[in-house]
Amino acid sequence: MGNCLVAQSGGPSSVINATIAGIVKANQLNPLYKKVYGGLHGIEGILKEMLVDLTDMSSEENRILRQTPASALGSCRYKLKRDNIADFEKLFAVLDKYEIDTMFYTGGNDSMDTVFALSEYAEKHGIKNHRFVGCPKTIDNDLVETDHCPGFGSAAKFINITVNTTWLDYNVYTREEVFIVETMGRDAGWLAASSCLSGKVDILLLPEVPFDKAAFLSKVKEIVKANNKCFIVVSEGVRYPDGEYLAAGEAKNDGFGHAVLGGAGNALKSMILDNGVASRAKVQDLSTAQRCAIHAQSLTDVEESFNLGMSAHMRSGDPAFSGYMVATRRGPGATYNVEYFAVEASKVANHVKKFPAAWILPDMAGITAEALAYIKPLIIGEPTLIYKDGLPVYVSPYYK
Amino acid sequence: MGNCLVAQSGGPSSVINATIAGIVKANQLNPLYKKVYGGLHGIEGILKEMLVDLTDMSSEENRILRQTPASALGSCRYKLKRDNIADFEKLFAVLDKYEIDTMFYTGGNDSMDTVFALSEYAEKHGIKNHRFVGCPKTIDNDLVETDHCPGFGSAAKFINITVNTTWLDYNVYTREEVFIVETMGRDAGWLAASSCLSGKVDILLLPEVPFDKAAFLSKVKEIVKANNKCFIVVSEGVRYPDGEYLAAGEAKNDGFGHAVLGGAGNALKSMILDNGVASRAKVQDLSTAQRCAIHAQSLTDVEESFNLGMSAHMRSGDPAFSGYMVATRRGPGATYNVEYFAVEASKVANHVKKFPAAWILPDMAGITAEALAYIKPLIIGEPTLIYKDGLPVYVSPYYK
Repeated sequence: MGNCLVAQSGGPSSVINATIAGIVKANQLNPLYKKVYGGLHGIEGILKEMLVDLTDMSSEENRILRQTPASALGSCRYKLKRDNIADFEKLFAVLDKYEIDTMFYTGGNDSMDTVFALSEYAEKHGIKNHRFVGCPKTIDNDLVETDHCPGFGSAAKFINITVNTTWLDYNVYTREEVFIVETMGRDAGWLAASSCLSGKVDILLLPEVPFDKAAFLSKVKEIVKANNKCFIVVSEGVRYPDGEYLAAGEAKNDGFGHAVLGGAGNALKSMILDNGVASRAKVQDLSTAQRCAIHAQSLTDVEESFNLGMSAHMRSGDPAFSGYMVATRRGPGATYNVEYFAVEASKVANHVKKFPAAWILPDMAGITAEALAYIKPLIIGEPTLIYKDGLPVYVSPYYK
Repeated sequence: MGNCLVAQSGGPSSVINATIAGIVKANQLNPLYKKVYGGLHGIEGILKEMLVDLTDMSSEENRILRQTPASALGSCRYKLKRDNIADFEKLFAVLDKYEIDTMFYTGGNDSMDTVFALSEYAEKHGIKNHRFVGCPKTIDNDLVETDHCPGFGSAAKFINITVNTTWLDYNVYTREEVFIVETMGRDAGWLAASSCLSGKVDILLLPEVPFDKAAFLSKVKEIVKANNKCFIVVSEGVRYPDGEYLAAGEAKNDGFGHAVLGGAGNALKSMILDNGVASRAKVQDLSTAQRCAIHAQSLTDVEESFNLGMSAHMRSGDPAFSGYMVATRRGPGATYNVEYFAVEASKVANHVKKFPAAWILPDMAGITAEALAYIKPLIIGEPTLIYKDGLPVYVSPYYK
């Protein structure tokens, strides 16, 4: 009996650690591995043999790990390049040294390419004692093959709560006001689109739709004229038709060439004020907080993230299980339910699932009922958090 | 038996409506008044006779009102000027018409001046059938006479949760990084100071301490050199020694004269990057979200806000009870406890309670143990929120 290794990569989420908790718990229920190692800072740290032992984590620590946001093992943006043979050799040497049968890697499409590359390398070199399994993770919800990604539901819940509460706030005064919420999502508009669950969004701007400045300003004007207010949600990744990001484009287009600090939200604010479309505009840039909000976790999301870790561990008992990513498939029927399955990591690697064009309403008016029905179940439920002294408890990062 | 009227003024908070809920509930338990009217948009709406009837609110609606952030009755920034006799006459005419015995007004020091002015006017003119009672409300915690203000504890809890979670997030990568959280607080640094409960703040910048750019940059440099990271919390109200706000001052000082979008946080970011003090800096401006965060309410705060409403109602049975504000006083002993009392609104009007100089550590290093002990009990406890479809429920604003 050998050991297993789990590591995290890419941007954090508020439920990413639940997958680790699931792997550790599964191994306690059925010890396929002698030890469960945590690799620190993804591939980068594994190459330096930065490992911690997670095998005998207590139930209490497991519960706290499940609610801890951000990557408790640390993360990296290190991309394993196929022509960097030295890296591959070093990595396999580490796996040999620590007798790692299976390496679990949580991340987005870059990380799934790493899982694919490693399993491909093993196969090519007739290496049979190391397996590689991916676990999906990204608040951006842009992985193909899986119904959705752990992290997205909680980020969507956070966004909708913030939209609801800031909408209540901006309405208390009778004065004219435009409120702009900026979400993450550089290439895919899932996060911004999710805000429509709130029912509060007057104008939705997605990266999937080239930005039409004249149409936008005219629509804001019209809505402000009718309601004295206008609530806008914009994805950071919105671009002009020529491909330039909104923020960068606005800096170029305003004739002053000054640096626009902040992103798309501030660009829209300047645009609205400079063109006299409204007398007051305020920006709430959700920034980092949206991907690590412990106090807005979706129970559905936390449980699925945990279950994906359990599923990955359980399936890895099969010696042929390498180069796969565990994933969710929505069950049939009106009641939300997911089935867990595995898909080749190669099919997920380097693809981006855009927000579907058919789900986008024309004229920046939001998303379709079908899209809302897809997102709605993902934000359901609230975990019972463990607090101490008024603040949610989290595990000290293992890399500290 | 006459009626009473309750209205809200100034900036919203996440527990301001609990005071209204307390007044309504108290009147159901002991009907001192035939009707409890809600005045919409503060003085501004009352002058226009915009009233709603809250008397028979159900227990369910009362519970939901208690958890609803922002001002459910709407707010205003309208300042009742003592020389505007027409306004006074109109207001008393409305009170006569609707047989209002007591008007409750929740707000900050401006609103307490309104309570003072109205009770003074009544006394001067021998008007005996209208009483005026203030209820404290401000996330800024800057009212004198009261131990603290409803709204502050929840905002402080939200700030600390966000500091903890974004701190976890910024640490996951090994790269050099400065993270800057900007809080509200134009004149008093209570909100920014509260962030030190998290134990994560390397540098704290308060409006009470003139900003020393050279000392700041040198301290950031030193901390980044030692830890590769530096976590900064800045109050929006931080100023240069000449009184200029950080953001405005930085725009002037950078020699380009360009508009700095956003506030103090972005000014610090530019300063750090332009001076090569760190290679990466990120800003989380908490903005509006910090004063309306339903998902980070402090149970202590919600209950005190409710109790202040109850107390105001109960005391108003005394015909001589006019021109007062209800307030909290911290009980003696190691266990946190508050006593409710009343203080002349004139003593509160137009004063600002700054964050005490004796509680500020030198060298931007945070706040003293005594200060932490003062703030800590205010964030304790979490209300059980009512959710629907994954989102906290709120009452539709009464002014809609």
